[in-house]
Amino acid sequence: MTTSRQSPIGVFDSGVGGLTVLKALRQAMPAEHLVYLGDTARLPYGTKSPQSISRYALQATESLLNRGIKLLVVACNTASAVALEALKAHLSPLPVVGVVEPGAKAAVSARSAGRHLVLATEATVRLGAYTAAIKRRDPDAAVHEIACEMLVALAEEGWTDGEIATAIVRRYVDPIIAGGNQPDTLILGCTHFPLLRPAIRAVVEPGTAIVDSASTTADAVKELLASNGSGAPAGQVGRLDLLATDGATRFARIGGQFLGQQIASSDIEIVDL
Amino acid sequence: MTTSRQSPIGVFDSGVGGLTVLKALRQAMPAEHLVYLGDTARLPYGTKSPQSISRYALQATESLLNRGIKLLVVACNTASAVALEALKAHLSPLPVVGVVEPGAKAAVSARSAGRHLVLATEATVRLGAYTAAIKRRDPDAAVHEIACEMLVALAEEGWTDGEIATAIVRRYVDPIIAGGNQPDTLILGCTHFPLLRPAIRAVVEPGTAIVDSASTTADAVKELLASNGSGAPAGQVGRLDLLATDGATRFARIGGQFLGQQIASSDIEIVDL
Repeated sequence: MTTSRQSPIGVFDSGVGGLTVLKALRQAMPAEHLVYLGDTARLPYGTKSPQSISRYALQATESLLNRGIKLLVVACNTASAVALEALKAHLSPLPVVGVVEPGAKAAVSARSAGRHLVLATEATVRLGAYTAAIKRRDPDAAVHEIACEMLVALAEEGWTDGEIATAIVRRYVDPIIAGGNQPDTLILGCTHFPLLRPAIRAVVEPGTAIVDSASTTADAVKELLASNGSGAPAGQVGRLDLLATDGATRFARIGGQFLGQQIASSDIEIVDL
Repeated sequence: MTTSRQSPIGVFDSGVGGLTVLKALRQAMPAEHLVYLGDTARLPYGTKSPQSISRYALQATESLLNRGIKLLVVACNTASAVALEALKAHLSPLPVVGVVEPGAKAAVSARSAGRHLVLATEATVRLGAYTAAIKRRDPDAAVHEIACEMLVALAEEGWTDGEIATAIVRRYVDPIIAGGNQPDTLILGCTHFPLLRPAIRAVVEPGTAIVDSASTTADAVKELLASNGSGAPAGQVGRLDLLATDGATRFARIGGQFLGQQIASSDIEIVDL
């Protein structure tokens, strides 16, 4: 399919978490058309095997290709860690941007030779994708990664602050700090986690920088479109299409928190993979 | 496929939770061969739409049919609530036993004209399957159902007791109790929840009966096999086969807690649906 400057940017996630990245993309590039796909029929990806994650990601992005996207954002840390190379190969020459590299860049910019603590899903941690991405940029950095599945559930349930959220964050983070690894930066290595920022802030020392991939991913996309001259024409007003593979009602209810604005379930188109 | 008394009983769940039912089946009928399938590639079912749940359950049980099962146990409350009739129609004349009816029977036996509190998944609660099953047996009963997704995450993470587990149970249950609905029975309406019994026990009044479907489901299966003369021949030593659709390592690690014995990942056969 031929694409033009008017073509939409595709944004893919396993569910609603990627809406935090979508929000940053809209803020950075209000003229761009955006089409978001959440693979809610098969979420979560974070506890599944690399083989299943790759297969699901490839299937799901097919439906974005059919919408004539000019660029794909993989707004899911797990899919970025596991399947980015497979997606790049499959979509070539279409540009593909993941969230792990921008997240690592944000962490290294915040503190050079820093001690970084990454909170992520089981699959992301197992592959050590953040450690590799940070060390490539800053070999002197020290990186710890923790799998925090309960934080995904907390964000989905909307229990984003209060005693339970704080106690859960503490249970994951305290053993690392007690081991003498007080972090300089804490990386939100799952797109669900920006919602838990207040609870995380309450647990780490005041000087710790909390970074996520959303704004740096938006910056990376903006640069890429500028460099290849495919940004939206001036004066265009960006349109947003929301697709999901299951459960429009639940997507609307939970997704609204992530996008930071109300979503009606009638705004969501269900696609069958 | 023709079946015999030697044929295995098939046990189906969305993941590892159904192993609590499998454990009860083994205890009640040590001579029966059992083949368990966890649809770990698509779990959890509890937050998905009825259409997706039914489609997944039908696909998954096909692979049990191919193993020549003589009876199917749907050891997943969500699939029992949503897809039992579809499975019965699809598998007819093979007998199919769900866990909702046995759970309702256990609750009504524990307290007639009781006030029952059901903890379950979003999909189970949305359909009110427990309310219907209890009221059919006891029209004077009062039933409250609460969707408790965080309890699934807690059980999967293995945080089954301690302050966090208690605080989460309390957050779900306390508003019901504060509304003057102190329950007589509390029904564990998801096969993950028997692991959380200590935390739940700590929150409800000492006189509250906590019931689950595991042992009553095993009783129902035993009766059914006796009534149609298809129980395992005397002297047979039951064999157990474990199948999953994804992630043998994770299945073994988490499943061991549910089954109450260690599982090696090499014991699990991965099947592709």
